[in-house]
Amino acid sequence: MRQAYQLRLADLGEHGYEMSQFTSDSLRKATRALLEADLVLAEQVIASDVKLDLMRASAENVALELLALESPVASDLRVVVSAMWIVSDLQRMGQLAIHVAKAARRRHPAHVIPMDVRPIIERMGRVGVHLADQAGLVLRERDIDLARRLEVEDDLMDDLQRELFGALLAPTWRHGVAPAVDIALLIRFYERFADHAVAVARRVVFLVTGENVGGDTTPAMAPSDPLSVQ
Amino acid sequence: MRQAYQLRLADLGEHGYEMSQFTSDSLRKATRALLEADLVLAEQVIASDVKLDLMRASAENVALELLALESPVASDLRVVVSAMWIVSDLQRMGQLAIHVAKAARRRHPAHVIPMDVRPIIERMGRVGVHLADQAGLVLRERDIDLARRLEVEDDLMDDLQRELFGALLAPTWRHGVAPAVDIALLIRFYERFADHAVAVARRVVFLVTGENVGGDTTPAMAPSDPLSVQ
Repeated sequence: MRQAYQLRLADLGEHGYEMSQFTSDSLRKATRALLEADLVLAEQVIASDVKLDLMRASAENVALELLALESPVASDLRVVVSAMWIVSDLQRMGQLAIHVAKAARRRHPAHVIPMDVRPIIERMGRVGVHLADQAGLVLRERDIDLARRLEVEDDLMDDLQRELFGALLAPTWRHGVAPAVDIALLIRFYERFADHAVAVARRVVFLVTGENVGGDTTPAMAPSDPLSVQ
Repeated sequence: MRQAYQLRLADLGEHGYEMSQFTSDSLRKATRALLEADLVLAEQVIASDVKLDLMRASAENVALELLALESPVASDLRVVVSAMWIVSDLQRMGQLAIHVAKAARRRHPAHVIPMDVRPIIERMGRVGVHLADQAGLVLRERDIDLARRLEVEDDLMDDLQRELFGALLAPTWRHGVAPAVDIALLIRFYERFADHAVAVARRVVFLVTGENVGGDTTPAMAPSDPLSVQ
């Protein structure tokens, strides 16, 4: 039984890793669809919601089975509960990539992004994809040092976000209100995508060390939690 | 032990109800701060994040204790796990109210919202507050019929959202890019607030009936889940 349990736990990690790859791929495609006004690619990302929901259901089922059948306590319980949060973050990342793809579809065949700010969106896409990839590695390798480096990379996303808002609000902006509104929402989607990737990494830190590094989307499992003192 | 368990479960419901009232109150104040450029009120909402995190930590601790010490199965496990998701939705609602308050603070002493679209924001605020109140009632009374009616009310939020985007993008919009960008993000905050309130109601339906009503932020606990077939 114990061995089966360890296998199921490992399964859960593998599910998470696959989901992180899936969301990374979705954001990569969604960004390309946006920048190239590629409707086919946008539709492909939008249609991936079914797969995304299945992946989450499947991972969550493993977690719930573990809770129901094995009644884990202490650090095992911490792992299972953390996995449930991680899977929820990853699903949300996938949904945010879908929002990006929908923005591309909404304006097709027009381009959403004016030429002069394309490079910023391109970089935001790259940082997001990289964060998702790194979060996946953190998850698979339980690499705490890498997890901490993700916070630094998230700062890059914040810088890009500020730069892009600056461009929208500058007197030199000459594309009017509609693209500015589209881009403001897109900025938010990329920012939230990155937040959730960082949250995944933080949850892995908590899962491994019991140490809560806090932050916006991290579960409030404070050091006084029953899980972390056991 | 069994009685203590039931008490702790009831506790969890009470925590959720209190959080729903707290988030409803936060959104009410944040909306007023926004419409009246009231910095003191905005700061008060922004400072509430500490209380919000504590409320979540406290509710989550009860859930984790129940998992660790009582090893619930079947419908009891469903209740505890649902409670964890609900608490996470409620915390997010509180954070979104804080985002609204921050928008008010950022532009102070200027008004964020031009006079001609104030009534729409006012209504969005009212619908959001009402949804949070109703979600709280659904939670406390486990009222499935009320839960279903929340979906209809959420449609009101969608209508207001469309109306406001329409105003921003109309040729008659004469407030320029900056207010449009602020308002686009505010629309998103109100929309997400409402989504999470609906998610709370859906999770209560699932918790009571085992029936999954689906949707964006609902956990993927499909009818094939171990929790719902036990």
